[in-house]
Amino acid sequence: MKTSVIVIGDELLIGQVTDTNSGFIARHIAPYGWEVNDVQTVADDAKQIRRAIDRAFESSDVVLTTGGLGPTKDDITKSVLRDYFGGEMIKRKDVLENVLEIFRRRGIKINVLTEGQAIVPSTAKVIQNRVGTAPIMWFEREGQTLVAMPGVPFETQEMFTSEVFPQLLKKYQTEMSVAHHTIIAEGISESALAMRLEEWETALPDYLHLAYLPKPGIIRLRLDGHHRDSELIERETAEYASELIGLCGDNFLYDGDKTPAEILLEKLISTGKTVSTAESCTGGNIAHLITSIPGSSEAMLGGVVAYSNDVKQRVLGVDGETLKEHGAVSIPVVEQMAAGACRATGSDIAMATSGIAGPGGGTAEKPVGTVCIAVAKRDGTTISQTYHFPGNRSRVIDRASQTALIMAIRMLDKLVE
Amino acid sequence: MKTSVIVIGDELLIGQVTDTNSGFIARHIAPYGWEVNDVQTVADDAKQIRRAIDRAFESSDVVLTTGGLGPTKDDITKSVLRDYFGGEMIKRKDVLENVLEIFRRRGIKINVLTEGQAIVPSTAKVIQNRVGTAPIMWFEREGQTLVAMPGVPFETQEMFTSEVFPQLLKKYQTEMSVAHHTIIAEGISESALAMRLEEWETALPDYLHLAYLPKPGIIRLRLDGHHRDSELIERETAEYASELIGLCGDNFLYDGDKTPAEILLEKLISTGKTVSTAESCTGGNIAHLITSIPGSSEAMLGGVVAYSNDVKQRVLGVDGETLKEHGAVSIPVVEQMAAGACRATGSDIAMATSGIAGPGGGTAEKPVGTVCIAVAKRDGTTISQTYHFPGNRSRVIDRASQTALIMAIRMLDKLVE
Repeated sequence: MKTSVIVIGDELLIGQVTDTNSGFIARHIAPYGWEVNDVQTVADDAKQIRRAIDRAFESSDVVLTTGGLGPTKDDITKSVLRDYFGGEMIKRKDVLENVLEIFRRRGIKINVLTEGQAIVPSTAKVIQNRVGTAPIMWFEREGQTLVAMPGVPFETQEMFTSEVFPQLLKKYQTEMSVAHHTIIAEGISESALAMRLEEWETALPDYLHLAYLPKPGIIRLRLDGHHRDSELIERETAEYASELIGLCGDNFLYDGDKTPAEILLEKLISTGKTVSTAESCTGGNIAHLITSIPGSSEAMLGGVVAYSNDVKQRVLGVDGETLKEHGAVSIPVVEQMAAGACRATGSDIAMATSGIAGPGGGTAEKPVGTVCIAVAKRDGTTISQTYHFPGNRSRVIDRASQTALIMAIRMLDKLVE
Repeated sequence: MKTSVIVIGDELLIGQVTDTNSGFIARHIAPYGWEVNDVQTVADDAKQIRRAIDRAFESSDVVLTTGGLGPTKDDITKSVLRDYFGGEMIKRKDVLENVLEIFRRRGIKINVLTEGQAIVPSTAKVIQNRVGTAPIMWFEREGQTLVAMPGVPFETQEMFTSEVFPQLLKKYQTEMSVAHHTIIAEGISESALAMRLEEWETALPDYLHLAYLPKPGIIRLRLDGHHRDSELIERETAEYASELIGLCGDNFLYDGDKTPAEILLEKLISTGKTVSTAESCTGGNIAHLITSIPGSSEAMLGGVVAYSNDVKQRVLGVDGETLKEHGAVSIPVVEQMAAGACRATGSDIAMATSGIAGPGGGTAEKPVGTVCIAVAKRDGTTISQTYHFPGNRSRVIDRASQTALIMAIRMLDKLVE
């Protein structure tokens, strides 16, 4: 089933907010054989919204809009939809009741603007928004459906998965079965990997498609299968994925679609090991990536953001002489930082980073992008390496974080072997 | 000048990658009076790309595409553009030379696939990509221009700002002047603030527009002005922004468009104060938000991610009895954590968080979303509060981080008064 998404809001076109709703919708509907055919991002402008709806219905029978439903003056989606689908604006008691309930729960008094949320076109079927004040509106015309959802990602995601998509599934059925299989490779460039896989990729049956999805430090390889025979497509996708893993050789990292932080956490939990961090240039990002995952407290003990040299010495016990002799961005220092994190937290392994994220601080010898990374086991074994990452500050921080996580995964694999 | 952006790539429509290029472009061109009129996201599909170009040229004379220029088989943008603008594929020596140079610098050998990057339509003017292997292609037809850029955000951003946009500015001029002024409010709901501002907003001259841009913990209010008279629009936007600040009253946080982390860092540096963190439920995110900002090492000493109770005691010196009596998620514990961070790092102020980010771990007394936050000064003064944040894990982490940063800003304001 093809779906079109329209993302509405001036704030998106001026680049002050990034749309994550369309991606969420796409990921959620894919396993059901549904796909997002196109995404249009338009301003809070009646003409633009109307044209986007016309265009969306040209390619899809289901159109989802997000945004433009707030109580403020710049949000006009509701009146555009009234003009588009006809009917008149009516104040619905059940919607007002729902808005009042949301406010009661949050301990806030309702105001006039929010009361306006209860006014909806008479042609709309309303799905009550359990987590926000903007009602979700469902319009139908000649077999085509448009569902208007709020722009707040949390509200859209909650209501799309619990109410909107189940109702869409009931209305539209699909005969095509889909299968996806993603594996993770690392330590190789996209083009070098593509060359290695070219012959194999060309020989793929036409119902299978390989996509390269590079991310900082890793390449995600996704096999997509589409076929009427659900058993066949499941089996074939799995078989070709095994071949793909073999072709990746030493560059294969993980069978599945997970981030390095998720892979590390899974391996830690399954082997009963614990981890900690000692971060200088990554400044807490590695800890943040791990602790963003539900259940991470099972393996993550904690960490130290050792931004100043003083904290490196005081909290992690890095030797002052080593700092003086080699500088903060050096292999001896990150190795001591990693060992210090194991000591301070009592963890089985620890990752440490020290580098120059930029834009300032680079020297001829250690230019911006130079990052030393160490992974230590509690028994004192360490692996460490100096990297030169390209790009700006946030890119260097991201690459360094992902690389540290991958090094920890590799060490853990050896620990377990 | 109206611009349309086309974002190309299967990975975007399946939701595995989020488009940040269009937002970057929009932010970059706005100060020049240029605007992104619409964004279309389409698959690596010839028919879709062609239709998107047709539609884009209907509303804009400048069309920017990103993505679909990689060396792998699924990237077809180049051949679609050859068909669209005519000409034949030619291998360009200067492009090959540039690709070879990029590889030399990275210490990688060139392979056959990458060599294909040097093949471009004869109708394209090439802008050499200094930071990647996909050449940037500039097509013109009847006063309209399409520029095809790679999808990798770092490459697009680097090349758009340094080469593509300056050349576009040279070609197209604009007579309209723009002015933007953003201020930050907090501690009030969007609709309550909108009610307070309604009368004022309605009375705004028609060349001024107010936009509400809520973000976790804050509301950004942006005044946009468009007028032929550049002096008038600068002056009027500034004057109305002052009025807006007055109307926000106690809810006014900052005059400018900065994140709470940026505001805090600015205030720290200007007053010569230092900061550290002691994070449990936010897991390093506060430290990450601060250290993502260039120059943060001037005020950020470091922090402790105290995920386990053991680390809270060992590294931050939280009292074991307090933990037992009140639990880890309690005011006494976060106050001790904040004081411990000041002690461990020697900072002037410290933020501490402890809470239940979910999805597990909630109880009737302390449900998911409960977060205790404290900010301490080195002399022992602390402010602290218990919050109940709605939403899923990442939302709770984000809200808790932003709230801690805002509390630190407020304390610093008092410190300085």
